[in-house]
Amino acid sequence: MAIIESIPNVSEGRRPEIIRRLAEAITRTPGVRLLDSTADASHNRSVFTIVGDAPSLKVATLALFEVAVEAIDLRTHKGEHPRLGAVDVVPFVPIEGATTEDCVALAKDVSATVAERFALPVFLYEDASKNPARKNLEDIRRGEFEGLAAKMATPGWTPDFGPAQPHESAGASIIGARMPLIAYNINLNSDRLDVAKKIAAAVRHSSGGMRFVKAMGVMLEDRKIAQVSMNLTNYQKTPVFRVFEMVKREAERYGVTILESEIVGLVPSAALLSSAEYYLQIEGFSANQVLENKLRTAE
Amino acid sequence: MAIIESIPNVSEGRRPEIIRRLAEAITRTPGVRLLDSTADASHNRSVFTIVGDAPSLKVATLALFEVAVEAIDLRTHKGEHPRLGAVDVVPFVPIEGATTEDCVALAKDVSATVAERFALPVFLYEDASKNPARKNLEDIRRGEFEGLAAKMATPGWTPDFGPAQPHESAGASIIGARMPLIAYNINLNSDRLDVAKKIAAAVRHSSGGMRFVKAMGVMLEDRKIAQVSMNLTNYQKTPVFRVFEMVKREAERYGVTILESEIVGLVPSAALLSSAEYYLQIEGFSANQVLENKLRTAE
Repeated sequence: MAIIESIPNVSEGRRPEIIRRLAEAITRTPGVRLLDSTADASHNRSVFTIVGDAPSLKVATLALFEVAVEAIDLRTHKGEHPRLGAVDVVPFVPIEGATTEDCVALAKDVSATVAERFALPVFLYEDASKNPARKNLEDIRRGEFEGLAAKMATPGWTPDFGPAQPHESAGASIIGARMPLIAYNINLNSDRLDVAKKIAAAVRHSSGGMRFVKAMGVMLEDRKIAQVSMNLTNYQKTPVFRVFEMVKREAERYGVTILESEIVGLVPSAALLSSAEYYLQIEGFSANQVLENKLRTAE
Repeated sequence: MAIIESIPNVSEGRRPEIIRRLAEAITRTPGVRLLDSTADASHNRSVFTIVGDAPSLKVATLALFEVAVEAIDLRTHKGEHPRLGAVDVVPFVPIEGATTEDCVALAKDVSATVAERFALPVFLYEDASKNPARKNLEDIRRGEFEGLAAKMATPGWTPDFGPAQPHESAGASIIGARMPLIAYNINLNSDRLDVAKKIAAAVRHSSGGMRFVKAMGVMLEDRKIAQVSMNLTNYQKTPVFRVFEMVKREAERYGVTILESEIVGLVPSAALLSSAEYYLQIEGFSANQVLENKLRTAE
C-alpha cells in the first residue's frame, strides 16, 4: 500500500480545546495515523504530522478543515508566524510506494473538494504548481491574510481552486506536494564561523550551489564549533553524499576538516541507502534486496 | 513485533509430493510466511526461507519435522550434499526487533520439543552452542548420517537434546542461531586473479584477516575481471564499510583500483545504513530516525 505523509499547518496554537478538536478530526479517521503534533503559542500555530493512504488522508484533511474553518477567525488572529488562512499550508509528501505525481494528484483532489465545500480559495504550491511565480510558499504567502484581498485583485493571483476573493474568516489555503525534507548539519573541526558561512554560500542553491540545498553558517556557541546548517529539499536529485563531499572539499580549501555530521529528525531510508551505494561503489542494487522491503512486499 | 527468519534445510529434493507437503506444513501455520523455497534434485535437498514471530516459527518448524521424520529415510537417501538427518539444519536469524539472544532461546526451545516429540538427537550450533568444537556446522556434520552412530559413541558427541543414539531413519538435527549472512563481492579494475587471491587471503578470517569474513579470489571469465568474492557472517561486528576499505587499501598496494562492488541477494538495511553513517560521519544517529522504522513502530 502506498504511504503518503501530510503535515498540515493550522493557525491555532493557543486554545487547547480547539487544538484538541483538530487532532481528533485526524485521529478519528480510519486509515491515518497522527505521528506527531506540536502547538506553538507565540507562533499561534499547530503542526500535525499524519501518514496514511491517499483516500484516508483526504478524509482526514477535510475533517481538519471542517474544524478549522468553523473555529478560527483570521480577522482576530495574532501570532509571530506568517499565515494566509485558517488551514494555512498542507503539503503531501511521498513516503513509501508513492510518487510525487501521486501526491500532486492528491493535492489537487483535496484542493478542489475543499474549495467547493468551504467556498475557500486554494493556491497550489511546490510540485503541485505549474506556475513558476507560485511554486514557492513564501511568494504565495507574502502580504499575509491582511493583504490577501488586495493581492488577489492583482493579475496573476487568481487561485487555482475556489472563489476569486478570500474567505471572510478563513482566508485562503496553500496546498501542494513536495519531497521529504532532510535537516542535515555538518560540524567543522574549527570555530571559524566565516568558513562555515563561505561553505554555506558555496553549496546552497540561492547563491550558485546545488539545486535542492538551503544552507547557512552558524556557531554552536557552547561547543565553539562552526556548523554548516542545511535543509535538503529533494534527496533524490541532490543526494546527501554529494552535499557532504562538496562541503568537505570546500572546507579543505581553508585547511578545515569535517568533525561530524548530523541528521535532525526523520530521514527516509532511501536517502541513506544511496550514500552506502555511492561509497561502497555498489552496482546493480535494487531496493528489493533490502530484507525489510522484501518482508513488506510479501505481506 | 520481533521478526525472525528461519531457513530449514531438509534432506528431500526429488519427490515433488513430499516437497509440497513440507511447504504446506509451513504455509498452513498462521503468523509465518514462506518467502522462498528451492529444491535441488542432485543435492536431494530443499531449502525453505520462512519469517515470522518466535511462537509461530516454533509451530511451523514442528509441523515441518512432523512431515520430514515420517517421510524421509536417511538409510536409503542419496545426494551430493552432506547431511546428518531428515531435517538436517535449522538456523534462526534475527531480522527486525529481535536479538541473537532471542534466536538462541528459540533454537533451544524448538530443539527441546523436537527431541522429546520425535525421540531425535539435536545438536546446537553457531551462536546457540557454547562448545567451541561444536559451533561450526561442518564439524558437527562430518561423517554424515552413515558415520553418526559411531561418532555419537565417542567422547564429546553427546547431543544437546534427545537420545544418545541416532534416530533410526531420521538421523539427527542441527539447530542454532546465527546472524544474517551477506554475500558481498568486490570487482577489481584488473584481470589479475593473483591480486584478487592475495586480497582475499589478507581480509579473510582463516588466514589472519577480519573475524567475520570468508573470502576467495575468482575470475569473471566473460568480463576478464578479477573478483574478491566474500561472505560476511556478522555485519554488526565486521561491517561492510570496513571490509570495503580494507580491500581497497590492499588493492592499492598492487596498483589496482576497485571497479565496483555487488551485494548478492538480500541484505538487512542496518548493514547499509551503518555504511552511510560511517562515510557521512553521522554522529548520534538512531534507527528511530529512519522514517520507515518510525512508521512501523507507530503501528
